[in-house]
Amino acid sequence: MFKKVVIFGVGLIGGSFALALRHAGQAAHIVGVGRSAESLARARELGIIDSVATDAAAAVDGADLIMLAAPVAQTEAILAAIAAHLAPGAIVTDAGSTKSDVVAAARRALGDKIAQFVPGHPIAGREKHGPEAALADLYAGKKVVITALPENGAGDVERVAAAWQACGAIIHRLSPQEHDAVFASVSHLPHVLAFALVDDIAGKPHAATLFQYAASGFRDFTRIAGSSPEMWRDISLANRDALLTEVDAYLAQLGAMRQMIAAGDGAALEKIYASAQHARLQWAAAIEAVERKET
Amino acid sequence: MFKKVVIFGVGLIGGSFALALRHAGQAAHIVGVGRSAESLARARELGIIDSVATDAAAAVDGADLIMLAAPVAQTEAILAAIAAHLAPGAIVTDAGSTKSDVVAAARRALGDKIAQFVPGHPIAGREKHGPEAALADLYAGKKVVITALPENGAGDVERVAAAWQACGAIIHRLSPQEHDAVFASVSHLPHVLAFALVDDIAGKPHAATLFQYAASGFRDFTRIAGSSPEMWRDISLANRDALLTEVDAYLAQLGAMRQMIAAGDGAALEKIYASAQHARLQWAAAIEAVERKET
Repeated sequence: MFKKVVIFGVGLIGGSFALALRHAGQAAHIVGVGRSAESLARARELGIIDSVATDAAAAVDGADLIMLAAPVAQTEAILAAIAAHLAPGAIVTDAGSTKSDVVAAARRALGDKIAQFVPGHPIAGREKHGPEAALADLYAGKKVVITALPENGAGDVERVAAAWQACGAIIHRLSPQEHDAVFASVSHLPHVLAFALVDDIAGKPHAATLFQYAASGFRDFTRIAGSSPEMWRDISLANRDALLTEVDAYLAQLGAMRQMIAAGDGAALEKIYASAQHARLQWAAAIEAVERKET
Repeated sequence: MFKKVVIFGVGLIGGSFALALRHAGQAAHIVGVGRSAESLARARELGIIDSVATDAAAAVDGADLIMLAAPVAQTEAILAAIAAHLAPGAIVTDAGSTKSDVVAAARRALGDKIAQFVPGHPIAGREKHGPEAALADLYAGKKVVITALPENGAGDVERVAAAWQACGAIIHRLSPQEHDAVFASVSHLPHVLAFALVDDIAGKPHAATLFQYAASGFRDFTRIAGSSPEMWRDISLANRDALLTEVDAYLAQLGAMRQMIAAGDGAALEKIYASAQHARLQWAAAIEAVERKET
């Protein structure tokens, strides 16, 4: 049980964490901090937080768990504001989609208190945002990746893991670099590709005709292009190196396929399509088997 | 009412057309033709067709509507087999995903009977295949693009349109070239991109780890990579010119975005992401408004 939990950013991610912790009886008092007074008021109305803090020093006074769920670009400023007020034993964690940059920002902002920062990334989301979108069961059965630092005490890492487990999450562990390479490949690159396609089509003179004939395959493929431009700008830059590696591999792959199409090399194309179909069907079957086990 | 309808290919597309026509009371007798005796027997058991023909000449004898719903690569062979047996007044149509190549094949195979071929493309599908997947309402509310030829009589085009309308479909008209350019952009390119991503990931040494962390965004983005490799090989080559135009535009777009990421140009990236998000949300809202009106 945490005596005082502070949530920076009371939207979908932070709000759901607060609801789930409270639901599990793991938080005696939850304080919300954020840039939008309106969101904070709404979060209080919805029972996500018990009180609102406007001052970082007051917010973290007596806190034993601090969750950063604000946009990743704010991480360093938030940590710099609370660093001097962090009591020994208080643990700071985060929910950012990128980790190497967050760790670098934390090292700069926290200095010799870096051991108190245990970075994390919950693999969960919905298309809605803000306190209204928060759900007590958003993390149930979902993965949370903890990218512990060499400086972290084992007990502190365990307390963060236990908090997420109380929310129903399944804990995975990667280094920050491993994390960023994995998500550049399976999340960040697909977002870039979907944004690229929709912007490409939207920029054509006959875009209205094109969109008229887009059907269910297009709908699924481009769903992630409905995501927040600001958030994905920040992720694209925060994970720049790993993302560029993936973009370059993809450009090479697509360039090779372009040559196969131009050369009319049906056998080579079919080999790639068949490999992709096989991998996709295997992956989907594995995911569905896990989901069946959980329900 | 058609006296005798012949369906080449009694799977999802041809079988659903047969079921819908029968359901609408528009077909007195439906004959199935295909390469798989097993599929034909199953289609007969399921009440999709009334009889099976193994000989093209016998199949089209007395037929007033002939639907080609076999893989597009078989179009020319089927048309060549039936050309000599086509009675005046009989109409041939198809359900192929590409049109310029189908029209070229039809011109070669049918010669001076080309006026009897009215090309079409129903924009409908499901992930399942074969006669078992056929549904009487697959085409309800869905678009069918008719790409009429200059040689077609207005009455014949009207009869094909009426058959699809009896299936519940909404008729659109494009030239074969317009059709192929549109679908290269909103369907064929996204399939190539999804196949490329999944094959790219599947080929990496740590593919198993990567797939383990793929979540719902990846699931939607790659759903179309579960499609038939043979069918998409054929489509990629059949619509080669239009597809290459789209692949090249996309490579240029992604190359430009790569430079923005490398240069840390967040403003330029955000502009593209915001344009894509805006277009995607507008498109989804328009589609949902149409769907609400229909239900």
